[in-house]
Amino acid sequence: MMGWGSALCCIIALSLVHVSLGAKARHFNWEVEYMYRSPDCLEHIVMGINGQFPGPTIRAKAGDTLVIELSNKLHTEGVVIHWHGIRQLGTPWADGTASISQCAINPGETFKYRFKVDRRGTYFYHGHYGMQRSAGLYGSLIVDVADGEKEPFHYDGELNLLLSDWWHKGVHEQEVGLSSNPFRWIGEPQSVLINGRGQYNCSMAAKFSNPPIGQCKFRGNEQCAPQILKVQPNKTYRLRIASTTALASLNLAIQGHKMVVVEADGNHVQPFAMNDLDIYSGESYSVLLTTDQNPSRNYWISIGVRAREPKTPQALTILNYSPTSASRIPMSQPPVTPPWNDYNHSKAFTKSIYALMGSPKPPKTSNRRIVLLNTQNRVNGFIKWSINNVSLVLPSTPYLGSLKFGLNNSFDQKSPPDNYDSSYDIMKPAVNQNSTQGSGIYTIGLNTTVDVILQNANTLAKDVSEIHPWHLHGHDFWVLGYGESKFKEGDEKTFNLKNPPLRNTAVIFPYGWTALRFVADNPGVWAFHCHIEPHLHMGMGVVFAQGVHRVGQIPREALACGLTGNKHN
Amino acid sequence: MMGWGSALCCIIALSLVHVSLGAKARHFNWEVEYMYRSPDCLEHIVMGINGQFPGPTIRAKAGDTLVIELSNKLHTEGVVIHWHGIRQLGTPWADGTASISQCAINPGETFKYRFKVDRRGTYFYHGHYGMQRSAGLYGSLIVDVADGEKEPFHYDGELNLLLSDWWHKGVHEQEVGLSSNPFRWIGEPQSVLINGRGQYNCSMAAKFSNPPIGQCKFRGNEQCAPQILKVQPNKTYRLRIASTTALASLNLAIQGHKMVVVEADGNHVQPFAMNDLDIYSGESYSVLLTTDQNPSRNYWISIGVRAREPKTPQALTILNYSPTSASRIPMSQPPVTPPWNDYNHSKAFTKSIYALMGSPKPPKTSNRRIVLLNTQNRVNGFIKWSINNVSLVLPSTPYLGSLKFGLNNSFDQKSPPDNYDSSYDIMKPAVNQNSTQGSGIYTIGLNTTVDVILQNANTLAKDVSEIHPWHLHGHDFWVLGYGESKFKEGDEKTFNLKNPPLRNTAVIFPYGWTALRFVADNPGVWAFHCHIEPHLHMGMGVVFAQGVHRVGQIPREALACGLTGNKHN
Repeated sequence: MMGWGSALCCIIALSLVHVSLGAKARHFNWEVEYMYRSPDCLEHIVMGINGQFPGPTIRAKAGDTLVIELSNKLHTEGVVIHWHGIRQLGTPWADGTASISQCAINPGETFKYRFKVDRRGTYFYHGHYGMQRSAGLYGSLIVDVADGEKEPFHYDGELNLLLSDWWHKGVHEQEVGLSSNPFRWIGEPQSVLINGRGQYNCSMAAKFSNPPIGQCKFRGNEQCAPQILKVQPNKTYRLRIASTTALASLNLAIQGHKMVVVEADGNHVQPFAMNDLDIYSGESYSVLLTTDQNPSRNYWISIGVRAREPKTPQALTILNYSPTSASRIPMSQPPVTPPWNDYNHSKAFTKSIYALMGSPKPPKTSNRRIVLLNTQNRVNGFIKWSINNVSLVLPSTPYLGSLKFGLNNSFDQKSPPDNYDSSYDIMKPAVNQNSTQGSGIYTIGLNTTVDVILQNANTLAKDVSEIHPWHLHGHDFWVLGYGESKFKEGDEKTFNLKNPPLRNTAVIFPYGWTALRFVADNPGVWAFHCHIEPHLHMGMGVVFAQGVHRVGQIPREALACGLTGNKHN
Repeated sequence: MMGWGSALCCIIALSLVHVSLGAKARHFNWEVEYMYRSPDCLEHIVMGINGQFPGPTIRAKAGDTLVIELSNKLHTEGVVIHWHGIRQLGTPWADGTASISQCAINPGETFKYRFKVDRRGTYFYHGHYGMQRSAGLYGSLIVDVADGEKEPFHYDGELNLLLSDWWHKGVHEQEVGLSSNPFRWIGEPQSVLINGRGQYNCSMAAKFSNPPIGQCKFRGNEQCAPQILKVQPNKTYRLRIASTTALASLNLAIQGHKMVVVEADGNHVQPFAMNDLDIYSGESYSVLLTTDQNPSRNYWISIGVRAREPKTPQALTILNYSPTSASRIPMSQPPVTPPWNDYNHSKAFTKSIYALMGSPKPPKTSNRRIVLLNTQNRVNGFIKWSINNVSLVLPSTPYLGSLKFGLNNSFDQKSPPDNYDSSYDIMKPAVNQNSTQGSGIYTIGLNTTVDVILQNANTLAKDVSEIHPWHLHGHDFWVLGYGESKFKEGDEKTFNLKNPPLRNTAVIFPYGWTALRFVADNPGVWAFHCHIEPHLHMGMGVVFAQGVHRVGQIPREALACGLTGNKHN
């Protein structure tokens, strides 16, 4: 069976031994531009880096300094890149968030990102301006342990899966729809991509497909031909899996193989085995895979959509046991994703994640509790997401500069509230659906311990509450617990203070709450937001400022716009 | 016959008497954003102003000061607006050319354009950054005579036609194609628009169409329903016609009516009568139309493509005599555009244009002659247009600021040459097709008289030479003459120094030359370029700097980027 032809040139290069990486400062010259590409076999323009989509994979060692000189070769658009999961200790201006940590880089200009990757882990990077992440501006950032250090688990080889979703409608048009009245939703993605590759108009597993679809026939050099994961029998592989989807919550399964989860968002977790893995936008995992199955056949790796009624086909690739031909299609149907709305399955997975013994523990108490109600609202008739009734609108002058230079006119000086009206019924659409827009921020005392309770609620539609993966910049947080319906006094007694996982992204389930704790020990201004790109675009985020007086000299180029355009440190 | 139903609500409002306009400073608050629109009955996103497409018509009186506060409501793109035909005497920073006169306005920012409209005339405005003009960012700017002044011709009413062309492919994708190797041309426009309205998938004149197409059926409130030009019998109307096409050269004819040309690019011309009018991108005309035909029927106004093999249907609307129903379709076929390659027809029209007696005359001699060879080339394999072998690349810091502050690093300090290799054979593709890119400029002595000879040539393809309408910012020029093949010593003897028309845009015909003269009396930095949007994008322009030391205080906001970001006057 040679269903998709010889795909040898797409096989991921493997290293069966750890590669020694050496130097401490790693320089990259990157150019961002649109280019033609066929991510899912249909041609569109994507945002690429140095002609690559996804962008180049950065591979570094803990303790290294990365220097990325990012040149904007777009014609009329600004650009920034956020280094997702890197805490930017001492370098808040390098966080790559437009309007927050820096000015967007103008067309023709170059900005130098210089920061330390202080800790091993599976990370990624992506655009953080408008919806440029959706346009394809992303790539992997992998930090190995420092020389002489070891991971607390053994593996023989490594495979990297960067997951994303893809629309055929361009992001500018998506943005217009989201900002229109009447509102136009972007809809479900046309394709899920694995390392930037998906198949829209054919299937790798056509003979198992319902409804019927043609069998993909690849020579192997197509831009949408899947990357085959080639493995040796009886070895242990580390799969690094990260999701930079704009919308989709995903579930990954490997036919006939269990996965042992060992890392989440750059932090070690207590190993546990799963048949399938839920992953939300903004999250990363490492799982160990033992190639203990029949080596004379191949196995599906399948990725399906969760938590939204899926209208997107499964993404597929092949786990190819050497020396079996990579083009031999597995004999049975690819693993089927659990039902999209089987939240019990999702919760069971999420709640199985604990910090590895010996991990940093949270402070026993917190200094402040911020309860953030997530609601869908209308502002002047436009549909928005709001947090405690404020829909975030980013200012044109970055907060970091405004705070550093005391420019009070550049954003709303009133902070949004630490809580919401206790009479609000989260189980129903809001009685008053109108909300406000604002650019106010939360000012957090330096080195204080903050609890954040993310409170989900019903959307504007009856009986609908959605999943939101919240991502914090500049810090990890401990996930202290999840609960159903409204968080109430006493629920903090259920918090896991013993071995809560450290993460940078955590999900809220429909009609539920999620409790996080973090220590505000990183001077700067940091975004905390739903990682669903259109949700953030619709205002679903807040901003935390802490100890900006302790921030060092900000590179002039980071503030070359708005009211800070003529300021010097 | 009620072919397209009642279109009454689309009838252009007329004033049969001159409206008194009054005040001297006119303030406008404009917001630029993308919006959904169906310019030719198919929905796409267009760049609009205050929710309007085309943007609002500005109506002013000679001597007025316009103050336009332009807010950029785009999500990631900068924006500027150029006031085409306004010379910006003393206000070079308000010319609205990104990289030349100012920094692009960042998203969320507002820039105040403040300038005097010193002279009556038919003008327009449009985006001048990337290909935002193609995206729909344009509108009319009409300056009436000052109080107490009179036009040297009489008319009873006025009609305004702003012409443009439209592609279904978005401009970002167009830009990618033009910047790709292999090159991808944007192709011919899908539609020609009259005041932002065209019909792609139907025709107003279906019964005369070959190939067959459906009859448009409009209720009248559709975004693509034509604006009907309603007239009274036995009156004289001034039609103001301007072309802001991205590519198309156009020809306009009104069934059964002659047009008397009285104005070109804001300057009075010796009146002459024509059956049809050629208009190139960047040009404007006023023509007088006498409604002396049978008032019981209506008449086609048709606009077709010239100078490129037309793949775009004629644009149509109706001249509707009162009290005949606007929905009565004319009984015969719309006027047919002359054959696209009948250049004799075009030349005859162009050469019929002379300045009205009493207009300013050119100096008898010039201080400098700059001969600009227009060639199509390759630069590192990419297809470009070059002028004297240099393809223009705009710097990220605007020239005006760089020159004012003596910042030598922001653009190439070497000027491009004043002439080209005399052995170059303009009748054939270049022997050496390779060219260079550069950001060097021409420095012109203040108050010197400059002759520019635009020299056309063969493109990269055999036996092809194209039309290029060249537009000068900050000045009018006298069009001294046109010639065939290579301009040679002695050809200056043929120059018309007696009554050459003053214009801001002049065309070069295939394999020919066009001679212009202007006085460099306006301190600033001024673009001079082919007004075909993709050609400029491909480098087809030069920059003239003159007397920048005499430029007054430049508003800080105009220079809030690049190397001028922290400079003060």
